[in-house]
Amino acid sequence: MSKNILLLPGDGIGPEIVAETRKVLEVVNEKYDLGLELNEALVGGSAIDATGKPLPDETLAAAKAADAILLGAVGGPKWDTNPDFQIRPEKGLLGLRTELELFGNLRPAILYPQLAHASTLKEEVVSGLDILIVRELTGGIYFGKPRGIREKEGGVREGYNTYVYDENEIRRIGRVAFEAARARNKKLCSVDKANVLEVTVLWREIMEELKTEYPDVELSHMYVDNAAMQLVRAPKQFDVIVTGNMFGDILSDAAAMLTGSIGMLPSASLDKNGKGMYEPCHGSAPDIAGQGKANPLATILSAAMMLRYSLDQGQAADAIEAAVSKVLDQGLRTPDILSEGMRQVSTAEMGDAVVAAL
Amino acid sequence: MSKNILLLPGDGIGPEIVAETRKVLEVVNEKYDLGLELNEALVGGSAIDATGKPLPDETLAAAKAADAILLGAVGGPKWDTNPDFQIRPEKGLLGLRTELELFGNLRPAILYPQLAHASTLKEEVVSGLDILIVRELTGGIYFGKPRGIREKEGGVREGYNTYVYDENEIRRIGRVAFEAARARNKKLCSVDKANVLEVTVLWREIMEELKTEYPDVELSHMYVDNAAMQLVRAPKQFDVIVTGNMFGDILSDAAAMLTGSIGMLPSASLDKNGKGMYEPCHGSAPDIAGQGKANPLATILSAAMMLRYSLDQGQAADAIEAAVSKVLDQGLRTPDILSEGMRQVSTAEMGDAVVAAL
Ligand SMILES: CC(C)[C@H](C(=O)O)[C@@H](O)C(=O)O
Ligand SMILES: CC(C)[C@H](C(=O)O)[C@@H](O)C(=O)O
Repeated sequence: MSKNILLLPGDGIGPEIVAETRKVLEVVNEKYDLGLELNEALVGGSAIDATGKPLPDETLAAAKAADAILLGAVGGPKWDTNPDFQIRPEKGLLGLRTELELFGNLRPAILYPQLAHASTLKEEVVSGLDILIVRELTGGIYFGKPRGIREKEGGVREGYNTYVYDENEIRRIGRVAFEAARARNKKLCSVDKANVLEVTVLWREIMEELKTEYPDVELSHMYVDNAAMQLVRAPKQFDVIVTGNMFGDILSDAAAMLTGSIGMLPSASLDKNGKGMYEPCHGSAPDIAGQGKANPLATILSAAMMLRYSLDQGQAADAIEAAVSKVLDQGLRTPDILSEGMRQVSTAEMGDAVVAAL
Repeated sequence: MSKNILLLPGDGIGPEIVAETRKVLEVVNEKYDLGLELNEALVGGSAIDATGKPLPDETLAAAKAADAILLGAVGGPKWDTNPDFQIRPEKGLLGLRTELELFGNLRPAILYPQLAHASTLKEEVVSGLDILIVRELTGGIYFGKPRGIREKEGGVREGYNTYVYDENEIRRIGRVAFEAARARNKKLCSVDKANVLEVTVLWREIMEELKTEYPDVELSHMYVDNAAMQLVRAPKQFDVIVTGNMFGDILSDAAAMLTGSIGMLPSASLDKNGKGMYEPCHGSAPDIAGQGKANPLATILSAAMMLRYSLDQGQAADAIEAAVSKVLDQGLRTPDILSEGMRQVSTAEMGDAVVAAL
């Protein structure tokens, strides 16, 4: 039975890192007889340039038909000033998330032992770090209505957005997080601002309600400002963190940066059946696009996550992860993770090295 | 001419740290003949216990009449479960901020050279750190309406809050930030999420508009997720950061924790005339309340800020800051900043040492 994989290179360094990941997927496809069919489509700024839309109908249809999706990155200064807010690269990404109902975003922050020095934090604070942030991805203030910019009486303009969650949205992301915690170290920290925001009072209440279904998981609550502090102070206190879309955006980036090697971190966005879109945690880095400086490993590791979670191919996923570990052991480094005594390689050399290690 | 200072000890460690600060204020009052009259009032959980309200009318009236206000901290688990959202300690603090229109929140994150080791970040990343976060404090999602928890059709509950800013609110906090940057290193970074939230598209637009009034200040923009990352990666790239209420809450706590000594950081919340409320950046720490373990220095330094900004007593402020520096040089440390070779002291011993150093 063949599996239909949609590759969405996107903008900036997206095409380069997806190209390397494609090489890796082609090799495991053959070696493990996975029956993957790899197709590509446009999204983001490159789709705006080609079609006028950040998420062309064709791309959306292909994404719906696919068994899994691998995305590079979207966005860049070229499109940032577009006055029509609907015609921005990010709308392509947000459109995919909602249209496919990819509400469960898993963002691991893991410190690779070979890269321990890359962190700006002291080694004892981050060594062995392994946190999973579960971020709600299709609700909250990102999608809440009403939203916009309007004129008040007297011609004064005001901008407004709506932060909204209903019980069901909270419950389904809560279950993803409790399940993830159950499969890990059984500690779940729910992050909210329940001392100020009513929407997160409901969030906290539903998390408490779910606790009774997962008596083996230890649930705690933390205000978002404190969570940002605790990530810097003592990140290893966390196992799984669950939070809404906006707080999750901020905290997962902070957590990723604790490792010092955001170029290494994959992510998964899943729907209720486990179908998913996989992408690196980092962005499109337009400043280094096309220069062979980008680190393809986060995207390659995202492909491994894809094989494991959406395609049930744990063996092939393991093989990719082992190959990545091997190239790190060999001392190969793209510029973002370079340190003394290591060998600097280009994006393509890194991809080739992973292929060779397979 | 006498000056009327309102002390609001609040909850948790609040009373202890304000008591030490009171000693310090009494000494400088005499020494520099400041004519300060110190009064106290209830706010937060202790006010709920005594009067049923987190911000009693009497306290609000006293705050309005005062020339400046010094707050300890509010909040604690005892009141967290109060089902009536209006009867929570935080509402006392938020009420003071809005009623007095204290829209300009200045939160410095400064690394004291004597405490460089306290940071969880590597010394080269944070040594000499000196950032100022300017947070809008009386608008945004903290106060936006509509807000609440309601039933939708079918009985499903949803929580909702409104993130809203008008041009005038953005402009007045923008000016505070541009002025602050002008008085420092002339670099201002405005933090938003303009790729997703319309309210922050307006924010960015107004900041750009203000730039023309401050041609000597270099303005940049950063998305909030990236800002959280950059604070961890390379915090010294920042001089002044300006942002809204919610993002400011999160980023200022993260920035404060970079120093490793949040027990040292003061803050000011100012109205349009420079009248202000001063408080430590840290919270009420109910877990250590009443044990003499709290660090009073952030509150003492907040009193120094108060003398400088609201009372125009720069000399007395300098004297307090010099005294704090001296006790650090003497090796005195409360438990939160203790390190090898230093002498552990209690809250009161620390306060007495500052008094002696004056
Ligand atoms: C590009 C942007 C819309 C997106 C987000 O904010 O969700 C990105 O920051 C992310 O975290 O995937
Ligand atoms: C106590 C709480 C309401 C408050 C806030 O969120 O503003 C606090 O975290 C702060 O930053 O002063």
